[in-house]
Amino acid sequence: MSKNLLYAQSGGVTPVINAQAYGVIETASLSQDIGKIFAARNGIMGVLEENFIDISTIDKQVLSGLMHTPAGAFGSCRYKLQDESEIKAVIEILQRYEIGYFFYNGGGDSQDTSNKIAEISQRMNTPITCIGIPKTIDNDLPVTDNSPGFGSVAKYVAISTLEASLDVASMCATSTKVFIMEVMGRHAGWIAAASGLANPHIILFPEVTFNADKFCAKVQQTIEQYGYCVIVASEGVKDEAGNFVASSDNQDAFGHAQLGGVAPKLAALVTERLKAKTHWAVCDYLQRAARHIASQTDVDQAYATGKAAVEFALAGNNAIMTTIVRTANNPYQWEVGSVPLSQIANQEKFLPKEYISADGWGITQRCKEYLLPLIAGEAYPPYQDGLPVYSVI
Amino acid sequence: MSKNLLYAQSGGVTPVINAQAYGVIETASLSQDIGKIFAARNGIMGVLEENFIDISTIDKQVLSGLMHTPAGAFGSCRYKLQDESEIKAVIEILQRYEIGYFFYNGGGDSQDTSNKIAEISQRMNTPITCIGIPKTIDNDLPVTDNSPGFGSVAKYVAISTLEASLDVASMCATSTKVFIMEVMGRHAGWIAAASGLANPHIILFPEVTFNADKFCAKVQQTIEQYGYCVIVASEGVKDEAGNFVASSDNQDAFGHAQLGGVAPKLAALVTERLKAKTHWAVCDYLQRAARHIASQTDVDQAYATGKAAVEFALAGNNAIMTTIVRTANNPYQWEVGSVPLSQIANQEKFLPKEYISADGWGITQRCKEYLLPLIAGEAYPPYQDGLPVYSVI
Repeated sequence: MSKNLLYAQSGGVTPVINAQAYGVIETASLSQDIGKIFAARNGIMGVLEENFIDISTIDKQVLSGLMHTPAGAFGSCRYKLQDESEIKAVIEILQRYEIGYFFYNGGGDSQDTSNKIAEISQRMNTPITCIGIPKTIDNDLPVTDNSPGFGSVAKYVAISTLEASLDVASMCATSTKVFIMEVMGRHAGWIAAASGLANPHIILFPEVTFNADKFCAKVQQTIEQYGYCVIVASEGVKDEAGNFVASSDNQDAFGHAQLGGVAPKLAALVTERLKAKTHWAVCDYLQRAARHIASQTDVDQAYATGKAAVEFALAGNNAIMTTIVRTANNPYQWEVGSVPLSQIANQEKFLPKEYISADGWGITQRCKEYLLPLIAGEAYPPYQDGLPVYSVI
Repeated sequence: MSKNLLYAQSGGVTPVINAQAYGVIETASLSQDIGKIFAARNGIMGVLEENFIDISTIDKQVLSGLMHTPAGAFGSCRYKLQDESEIKAVIEILQRYEIGYFFYNGGGDSQDTSNKIAEISQRMNTPITCIGIPKTIDNDLPVTDNSPGFGSVAKYVAISTLEASLDVASMCATSTKVFIMEVMGRHAGWIAAASGLANPHIILFPEVTFNADKFCAKVQQTIEQYGYCVIVASEGVKDEAGNFVASSDNQDAFGHAQLGGVAPKLAALVTERLKAKTHWAVCDYLQRAARHIASQTDVDQAYATGKAAVEFALAGNNAIMTTIVRTANNPYQWEVGSVPLSQIANQEKFLPKEYISADGWGITQRCKEYLLPLIAGEAYPPYQDGLPVYSVI
């Protein structure tokens, strides 16, 4: 008898996580080996609450609109299953709904959850095929060459850096001399690095220790040389003591510090020390929801990693995550691969040393070569009355 | 003998001010009555410094790229001519370069400067035809139905609100409950109002006095009703005492307070009072440089207001500003008109009461009808290697 399929979204959302969902759904719906297709509302929380959406009840046009809709159409969650008893509770619910295939679309924490469900369901003699689908704008998942979601955020950040640079260049004669843009990337500087494609004067990476004196000297020198200074700062910039420059006391469900606010702190520093007029922007959710300027490469890879997840499952694989494998750089070529979940769980891939320029303020040519294909192509959504038409489920 | 033409950009730049420049340049270059075409580097500062660019020396492709290049390609400035003697110095320089036509592309302060040059040059018996070209993302110039630059910023803000709303909606079950986006608009709430096209739960206008208790009660009620709350706040939000919620001690060259930072202040308030997880974004320059998602209406009107400025000048008009006249709403129709500069100088057009909903947290249907045609159409720039191709002069 064919088993049912459950798809769920987890962690911070991306401009293309729904394209991954559509890859899963469209591929699964063509298979005779899969029965009903469900999506959990709000990730693993929806499983615990038995809050399932039967995909067959969704209008076809709304469903295909997932290809160009940002954020998590089924709802996501930041909730880590507490212990083995909670994992067993999840497995019992999945059994009750005759779910033989569980597709969890998330980052490192989520892959860990998937891996445990696969392992424990096996031990319980009620095996559930668990396939992870990589998703993180932070691009910090190991093994995969890049993570779906990152390419579009990289494109948005590079374009925003380019555009804001033109703005401050045109204002600097009599007004703003310094512009600071804060981007996401808690521990890994991939998103900050992406701004390097638009050549800001200074990039502050989490991987490079922040020193206020050196920073101010570099800003001053840049203003003297070019008349203005464009800075892109990762939210995860840390000082000599290893503390986040923008730390707050709030923590999320996984115990991570909630960041935000490095840009105003740097702006205050520059204003005080250099007396230069400063503007600053904090991209926050705008960068990861900006489906209006998604990368075509990213959308293609998002769909493909969802599609391949189903194909791998049907071919008998279990406890793996789909990956993107770069097979050539010029011209760029890629294919979908896979990796055991055990090699993914709770690991972070940092920006390699050879991607950061020797002076620590920018990216290398090698980094540009890595990044460029990921932002290639403009995957525009359809518009009506001046606004994108996005699917709401 | 034909007289030369000088074009200059002033004040904060926009996604389409260069399209206005191109409207002037292309139209003037077809006229036998105009000699050389110059642009001043950095607005009126470039005039005082005799820093002129001879347009004929610019590559044709770079020049036509102005149609899709954001920010001020010739440089802008925030400098107000100090007194009559400085204005006379400007006029003497213009005479020396045989400039008979001066086109100043700016906001209210700049139109005042243009008007004085027209008036004083007349008195000096060396009349210079001065035509203003309206430009402000704030949309606060009087008489004109809207100002070029606003439509594209409105589109960016509405799209960003829509996208971020989907993001927080997908996160709210276990994580972020409140999202706050700060937009520009020092005194007038037009930009904040534009977010209303994407239906955020709360808009904070400069025209509506901010009360922390009422605000927190509204946020709480919204979270209870919808599970999350999306807030768009103008940088110009003021408290009961008339002080900017985000005031700083910095002032610009015109003596205006430099704003920025209402979003983190509101986020801190919400976190403290409601204990709700909050994210916030500050758009700053990103919103006004976002040529990658410009409004087609805005680009068309930008070019047209530049073109008409030259046509009005050649027809013998002086000391006027081009305007946009809305001649029909459904379907939207418009034409270029004109208004004496004396009716424009140093005035601000606020959001009318009938555009703000009765409860003060949103916009009315009438406001939506005003805004919708201004964000219509997507005027995409060309791309190469994943990034827009913008002209640098």
